[in-house]
Amino acid sequence: MVDDRVRDALRAFVAERDWAQFHTPENLAKSISIEAGELLECFQWGADADPQAVQEELADVLSYCLHLVDALGLDPGDIVLDKLEKTRAKYPVEKARGSSTKYDQL
Amino acid sequence: MVDDRVRDALRAFVAERDWAQFHTPENLAKSISIEAGELLECFQWGADADPQAVQEELADVLSYCLHLVDALGLDPGDIVLDKLEKTRAKYPVEKARGSSTKYDQL
Amino acid sequence: MVDDRVRDALRAFVAERDWAQFHTPENLAKSISIEAGELLECFQWGADADPQAVQEELADVLSYCLHLVDALGLDPGDIVLDKLEKTRAKYPVEKARGSSTKYDQL
Amino acid sequence: MVDDRVRDALRAFVAERDWAQFHTPENLAKSISIEAGELLECFQWGADADPQAVQEELADVLSYCLHLVDALGLDPGDIVLDKLEKTRAKYPVEKARGSSTKYDQL
Repeated sequence: MVDDRVRDALRAFVAERDWAQFHTPENLAKSISIEAGELLECFQWGADADPQAVQEELADVLSYCLHLVDALGLDPGDIVLDKLEKTRAKYPVEKARGSSTKYDQL
Repeated sequence: MVDDRVRDALRAFVAERDWAQFHTPENLAKSISIEAGELLECFQWGADADPQAVQEELADVLSYCLHLVDALGLDPGDIVLDKLEKTRAKYPVEKARGSSTKYDQL
Repeated sequence: MVDDRVRDALRAFVAERDWAQFHTPENLAKSISIEAGELLECFQWGADADPQAVQEELADVLSYCLHLVDALGLDPGDIVLDKLEKTRAKYPVEKARGSSTKYDQL
Repeated sequence: MVDDRVRDALRAFVAERDWAQFHTPENLAKSISIEAGELLECFQWGADADPQAVQEELADVLSYCLHLVDALGLDPGDIVLDKLEKTRAKYPVEKARGSSTKYDQL
């Protein structure tokens, strides 16, 4: 679960190091892409990846996502559920079931 | 908060559409990178970004992160806190405070 | 210039190491994203980047692009000029001049 | 081939639209990552991709790479060959042949 305890630990980590100055939304968006590339690197040559490396890189992407969510004054669970409603409309079950086709080609 | 309610909504969304077949860890890692690029696009030419677009793209990155966390049988809060401990060791406050220097140059 | 000499050097490098087996279009696309993240990391906290690092990471992205262009039997100059024509139509000078607005909002 | 004709076409395209102001190295690095994500999206759910889409997205990544190379006053062929020499040292044929293992694990 990602709850106040996790949010507070991330906030304290940044505050102790006086790093908020670097955590602009743009720098956090860049950081998310950078870490996403490091996660992808676990799978660079195929599906077979080191589970420990995947877990650590995924944790890095998630951490930066949570920093950005917090910097924007949002709640991570709420924005995920809000977006799920929009995605639900783009991918009605009767059209999308069993298919990986993008919504604009359904 | 990201709790069981959010996890269950994401699971149900995938199950209704018979999409688990596409949600291999590798495909999810690719999806995280793809959505991270769409988030970054909000800031392509500068710091000034549409807040609604940022929120939606961030929600997409977070959603795929949560799908991957779940596919690997992990808890998102736990892996973030575990990684924070490792990062704490790489960036001791007395060396890292106020600096954006990477740990291998501290 | 990127000419036959560059293309041949990249081909020889791969052939000597028996790496063509790993250079599927999908793996090359992943590699391009991975290296793009490493290039972006030079600018993670701002505009001020180490020129040597930027040059090396940019060379890595370019190299993987050239491997993929070659794997697909294409010419890099031709595909860039072809795409420029399409982009020209999406961004007519009279509408796009001096503006960073995306074509679908022009 | 990527020669002066290609470089000049890209320069003219930017000059006509007064876009040099947006083409800072940082913005170009972000653009390369963004387009790399769009290329990767062609392979999001598997190896089977639309060749036309792959060609267009690859052309976009290449174009931004060439814009950045030019903005830095470099030659694309030269930086690729320079980096190839460094990579040659990290992956000696006798150790690396037939293996996708990263150099720090060879």
